[in-house]
Amino acid sequence: MPRYKLTIEYDGTQFVGWQRQDNGPSIQGSLERAIEGFCGRRLTPVGAGRTDAGVHALGQIAHIDLDNDAGTDKIRDALNYHLKPDPIAILSVELVDSEFHARFAAIRRHYLYRISIRRPPLTLESGRAWQVHRTLDSDAMHKAAQTLVGDHDFTTFRAASCQAKSPIKTIEQITVTQAADKIHVSVAAPSFLQHQVRSIVGTLKLVGEKKWTLTHVKQALAAKDRATCGPIAPPEGLYLVRVDYN
Amino acid sequence: MPRYKLTIEYDGTQFVGWQRQDNGPSIQGSLERAIEGFCGRRLTPVGAGRTDAGVHALGQIAHIDLDNDAGTDKIRDALNYHLKPDPIAILSVELVDSEFHARFAAIRRHYLYRISIRRPPLTLESGRAWQVHRTLDSDAMHKAAQTLVGDHDFTTFRAASCQAKSPIKTIEQITVTQAADKIHVSVAAPSFLQHQVRSIVGTLKLVGEKKWTLTHVKQALAAKDRATCGPIAPPEGLYLVRVDYN
Repeated sequence: MPRYKLTIEYDGTQFVGWQRQDNGPSIQGSLERAIEGFCGRRLTPVGAGRTDAGVHALGQIAHIDLDNDAGTDKIRDALNYHLKPDPIAILSVELVDSEFHARFAAIRRHYLYRISIRRPPLTLESGRAWQVHRTLDSDAMHKAAQTLVGDHDFTTFRAASCQAKSPIKTIEQITVTQAADKIHVSVAAPSFLQHQVRSIVGTLKLVGEKKWTLTHVKQALAAKDRATCGPIAPPEGLYLVRVDYN
Repeated sequence: MPRYKLTIEYDGTQFVGWQRQDNGPSIQGSLERAIEGFCGRRLTPVGAGRTDAGVHALGQIAHIDLDNDAGTDKIRDALNYHLKPDPIAILSVELVDSEFHARFAAIRRHYLYRISIRRPPLTLESGRAWQVHRTLDSDAMHKAAQTLVGDHDFTTFRAASCQAKSPIKTIEQITVTQAADKIHVSVAAPSFLQHQVRSIVGTLKLVGEKKWTLTHVKQALAAKDRATCGPIAPPEGLYLVRVDYN
């Protein structure tokens, strides 16, 4: 049966996350319903990563096996039709090799975390960024972030509920950039632990506020203890931007 | 009584527009209630321009006379407190000369119109841009737009309901730029007619689609006839960006 790769964008605000759960609407659940509406069969799309409740995606990847040769553009349009009015869009559909696997074949995930520094409440950006009331030193945040690049035991930066077998992960790149009152934290790694990016951003914010120094970040990492992590950043600033495959 | 200049940002989606009307919630009405909540008196803020239903602002300007010397930051915070949960934020409050007038002292208004070219529905950008399904030639749009720069009778590009005494306006600048699938149309003028920017953008879209040439735009302008205007662009792509004062 032909396998299709879907590139998916969503506003995660109203969802319990990517994965279907009993406690509320999920991206995966909406996709299942759309697929069923389109081809009459219940299929579960396999995603590259499980985004948490409230986390957005600009380029989540999933695969499905569809006994349908309508053509990739028609499949995209039909799924988008059946996804309405949910804020989920299939950006593209590609026919892939039957060995393609959205999760296991992914070699790198790119996340973006958006911080908006301002005192007045967010309006147009509400639910799209983490509002922080006071100036952050983004250069200090960038320098501290380099401590986390490379192979490390990220136990400190991992949710208590994280189910990964090993806490050892490789962060390939973290950049912290600022333009006017917006700070962007971009993180790339082959794979992530649960809450890893938000834990890192929450910790970097302490550095930006000058409550923590580079040394504190090094100590927190070395402690391998969740209790030494800064308060995790809220989900609304996080975006799964892209997933790379060979 | 001290006069204050307010810089205001809002998501116009749910509002009937800037001006208080009987048929639904307005930005002005929300501000009146916030001012009353803060100082106990009903005051009507005077705005630099009347944005239409669904139009957004990044930097609308208004003035109010407040018998209150709490300080500009406290006034800003108090108004923002009383504006909740409306998607309206007072970005700044400044004490100005009693002769300052948000509307009559304004020397230039800057509008931005955002177009998103894509076939899948908008998710995170829903209500924040005009979604156009097919590629537009933004260079052709920019060239055609230059026809409209300068002093002209803009009868063609004006709402039937426009109450301005004269249809003659001066457009100082129009630029059409494209980055990936986003087209931005920026327009600056001392003042605008009702629906002028949206009428211009609707017409430029015809050029972008190659349905119209530069000559059609010239003819439409010269016709001074509303019937020759392209279909007006929807409100959700329009932003009042900034208002200049001497």
